[in-house]
Amino acid sequence: MATFGGRPTILRSIQPGQLIALAFAGVLAIGTALLSLPIAVHGRSATFIEALFTATSALCVTGHIVVDTPVFWSPFGQVVILVLIQIGGFGVMSLATLLGLFVARRLGLRTRLTAVSETHTVAVGDVRRVLTGVALITLTIESAVAVLLALRWWLGYGEDPGRAVWLGVFHSVSSFNNAGFALFSDNLMGFVADPWICLPICASVILGGLGFPVIMELRKKFRFPRAWTLNTITVVVGSIVLLVVGAVVLTILEWSNPATLGALDPAGRVLGGFTASVMPRTAGFNSIDVSQMHPASWLVTDILMFIGGGPAGTAGGLKITTFAVLFFIIVAELRGDTAVNMFGKRLPRSTHREALTVALLSVALVIGATLAIMLMTDYSLDRVVFEVISAFATVGLSTGITASLPPAAQAILIVLMFIGRLGPVALGSALALSTQKRQYELPKERPIIG
Amino acid sequence: MATFGGRPTILRSIQPGQLIALAFAGVLAIGTALLSLPIAVHGRSATFIEALFTATSALCVTGHIVVDTPVFWSPFGQVVILVLIQIGGFGVMSLATLLGLFVARRLGLRTRLTAVSETHTVAVGDVRRVLTGVALITLTIESAVAVLLALRWWLGYGEDPGRAVWLGVFHSVSSFNNAGFALFSDNLMGFVADPWICLPICASVILGGLGFPVIMELRKKFRFPRAWTLNTITVVVGSIVLLVVGAVVLTILEWSNPATLGALDPAGRVLGGFTASVMPRTAGFNSIDVSQMHPASWLVTDILMFIGGGPAGTAGGLKITTFAVLFFIIVAELRGDTAVNMFGKRLPRSTHREALTVALLSVALVIGATLAIMLMTDYSLDRVVFEVISAFATVGLSTGITASLPPAAQAILIVLMFIGRLGPVALGSALALSTQKRQYELPKERPIIG
Ligand SMILES: [K+]
Ligand SMILES: [K+]
Repeated sequence: MATFGGRPTILRSIQPGQLIALAFAGVLAIGTALLSLPIAVHGRSATFIEALFTATSALCVTGHIVVDTPVFWSPFGQVVILVLIQIGGFGVMSLATLLGLFVARRLGLRTRLTAVSETHTVAVGDVRRVLTGVALITLTIESAVAVLLALRWWLGYGEDPGRAVWLGVFHSVSSFNNAGFALFSDNLMGFVADPWICLPICASVILGGLGFPVIMELRKKFRFPRAWTLNTITVVVGSIVLLVVGAVVLTILEWSNPATLGALDPAGRVLGGFTASVMPRTAGFNSIDVSQMHPASWLVTDILMFIGGGPAGTAGGLKITTFAVLFFIIVAELRGDTAVNMFGKRLPRSTHREALTVALLSVALVIGATLAIMLMTDYSLDRVVFEVISAFATVGLSTGITASLPPAAQAILIVLMFIGRLGPVALGSALALSTQKRQYELPKERPIIG
Repeated sequence: MATFGGRPTILRSIQPGQLIALAFAGVLAIGTALLSLPIAVHGRSATFIEALFTATSALCVTGHIVVDTPVFWSPFGQVVILVLIQIGGFGVMSLATLLGLFVARRLGLRTRLTAVSETHTVAVGDVRRVLTGVALITLTIESAVAVLLALRWWLGYGEDPGRAVWLGVFHSVSSFNNAGFALFSDNLMGFVADPWICLPICASVILGGLGFPVIMELRKKFRFPRAWTLNTITVVVGSIVLLVVGAVVLTILEWSNPATLGALDPAGRVLGGFTASVMPRTAGFNSIDVSQMHPASWLVTDILMFIGGGPAGTAGGLKITTFAVLFFIIVAELRGDTAVNMFGKRLPRSTHREALTVALLSVALVIGATLAIMLMTDYSLDRVVFEVISAFATVGLSTGITASLPPAAQAILIVLMFIGRLGPVALGSALALSTQKRQYELPKERPIIG
C-alpha cells in the first residue's frame, strides 16, 4: 500500500528529539565538570565515571548512586545535584507537555489544555504558558512539601533550623521531581514509620508522577470527573489501581520479613508497604532495605517500575497510559470488539501500534542490557534485571549492587538512564507524528503515549 | 461503535477448545492411571503427583521430569510415555492444522492446503485428509530417524539389535513430537559430540517444529519459494534466523565453560552449541548440562523457548508467526507505514491485536506463575523463570530444580504445560474467529497466530 507523499517520516519527526537530547547532553557535561571539582567533595575528588554517573542520575531524575550522597559530596556538590534534578524534572515535564500538545494539534485532536482556538502548531504563547504553568505548579508543591518536611526535621528531630530548611528543600525537590536522592546514607530508612516525613514525600512523588496535564486538569475540574480528558482519567485510575495493588501485595510479601517490615508495629508496616508501592513509580526513595526484600517483591517492584507514572510528568517508565492502551486492546480482543474502548472513549487505531512499539522496544532494551551486564558480572538475573529496569525507568532503587558494578556496566546504566528519560517521550511523539492518516468516522481522543 | 449482530463471541468460539481440552484431560486421566500401576515402575509405585506430572509432561510433549525416566519407569511405563507422546504430538498437530484451516475458510482467505473449491466450513473429507496427511508425515519421518538412530546405537555403541531398535524408536518419536524424553539418565549428554545421534534428532525436532502445513507445502513446492504461503515463508525464515543466531550466541557464551562446551574439541563445541540452539524450540533434549550453563545463556534460552516453533506442529511457545507479526508491526511503525507488510504480504489489521493478545497474556501467565513459585521456594528468579517458561512453552529443559520443587509448585507446572500446549492454539483461533469484519480493499493473507 502506498504511503502519503510528503508525510513526515520517523527520521524527520525525531529531529526535535535530537535537539533535546543534545541540550540534555550539554547540561550533563556541565554537571559532570562541576561535580569533578575538588570543591564538590569532602575528601578525594570524584573519578570521571563517578561524576558522570551522578550527574546523569540527577539530571535524568533517577537517583541511582555509586557514592554515598551525604558523605561523599560537599554542600556545593549537593547543590549541583539539586540544580541538576530541578533542571531535569522541569525540562522533561515541560518538554513532554509541549510535545503532547504538538501531537494533539497536528493530529487535529481537541485539546483542553489551552483555551485558544484550534490550530495545527504550537505557538510561542503556548510555550510560555506551559513553562509558566510548570514553574508555578513546581514552586507551589515543592514549597508546601519543603515547609512540612522542614518543620518535622526541626521540631521532631531537633535539627537546627538552617539544616532543617535545607533538608526540607532538598527532599521536596528530590521527591516532586521523582529523583530519589536523599541526604541520609540509608535514604529514608530512618523514617520508615514516621508518617510526617513519608506521607508528604509520597504525596509529592505521586503529584509529580501524575504529570503536568493531569495536575492542571485536576486543579480546574477536580470535582467533575466526567469532564476529564482520557489522559487524565487513565492516569488517575491507573495510579490508584497500581498504588493500591502494589501496596497490598508488597505489604503482604514483606509482612513477616524481619529485615524489612517485620521489625515494625502494624501501622509502621502498612506505612512502609505503602511507601514501597509509591516509590517504584518512579521516585526511587526507599524506607525499607531493598536488598533484603524477598525476590518475589523484587519482581513485583520490577513490574511497577517498568510501568512507571503518568506521561508529561517527572516519572519514568513506559507510562501508565501506554500500559493501559495495551491492557484495553487485550480486553477488546477477548470480548471480540472491533473497536478498543477505554473509559468511554474509542482509541484511534494508530495508538495501538504506538503503544506496542514503545513497550516492546523497551522490553528488548531491558533484555539486551540485562544480558550485557550479566556477562560482565556474576550477579544473578533478579538483581541485574532490577538494576536495569530501575535505571531505564529512572527509578533509582537498587538491590545494592550499583556501586560495585564494573565501570562498563555503570556506563550501560548511564546510557539506560539517558534513553529511559528521553526515549519513550521522544519515540511516542515521533511515532504519533509520523502517521498523518486521519479517521473521521467517530469522535476520538487519545492519551499521550510514552 | 456497534458490533455486528450474531457475530460469534469469544465464548462461543472457544467451545471447540473446551471439547479438545476435555479430550486431552481424558487421555491424561488414563495415562496417569496407567503410570500409577505397579507394572509401570521398577521399584516403588509412583505417587499421584509423579504419575500426573509425567503423564502431563508426555501428553503435552514437554519433557519435564520429576523422576529419572530409564531408572524409575519399567518398559511398560516407558511404552505408556511413548504412546502419550505420540497421541499428544499427533493430536496437537492435526488439531491446530484443522483449526487453521477452519479459520482461513471462515475468514474467506485462500488456503492452498487443499485443492477443494472455496467453502466456509471444514468438511469430513478435510478432516480425513489432514489426519491421513499428519499420520503419513509422522510415520515417514519417525521411521527414517528411528532407522538412523538404531543403526548408530547398534553399530556405534554395541547395543544389541532389539534394544537399539527400541532406543531408535523411542528417541525418534520423542524428537519428532518435540517431547524431549530420553532413555538415558543424562538425557543426550553422552552423545554431545556424536553427530550421528545429534543431527538426526535435531533434524527430526526441526521438522516437527515447522508444523504440518509447512511440511506439506515444502514437500510440494520446496524449489519454488516465491509460491510459498506467508505462513510457510515466515516459519522457514524465522526458524533459520533463530537457529543461526541462537547457535552463534550460545556457542560463544559457553565456549570456554569447562562444565559445558569447554571440555570438547572445537567441532564438538559447534555441534553442542547448535544442538543447544535447536532444543529450546521446543524439544527440550539437552546434550550439555543446562544447570551448568552461564545465567546469560539461560536468558537467551528463555527467549528461544518463549518464541518456540512454527504453528500447527509439535513445537510449543508463542510460535514464530506470532513473534514475527509483532516484529513487523514495530518495523512498520518505525518506518511510519500505515500498513504492516511482511515478506511481501500485508497483514490484516485483526492479526495485530491477536498477536499482541496472545503474547501479552502469555507474558502475564509466565510472570504470575514465576511469582507464585518464588513464594513457595527459595530458588532465584533465573532458575524459576527458566522452569516456568520451559513448562509453558512445553520445552522441558530445566536448570535442575524440577524434581525438588514442592508438590504445589509442580502442580503449577502441570497447569502451565496444559495451558501452554492448548492455550495459544485455542486462543489464537478463537480470537481470529471472534471477529467477522472483512476487509476487501487489497488481497491479504494471514499466518496462523498462536
Ligand atoms: K527516580
Ligand atoms: K518438549
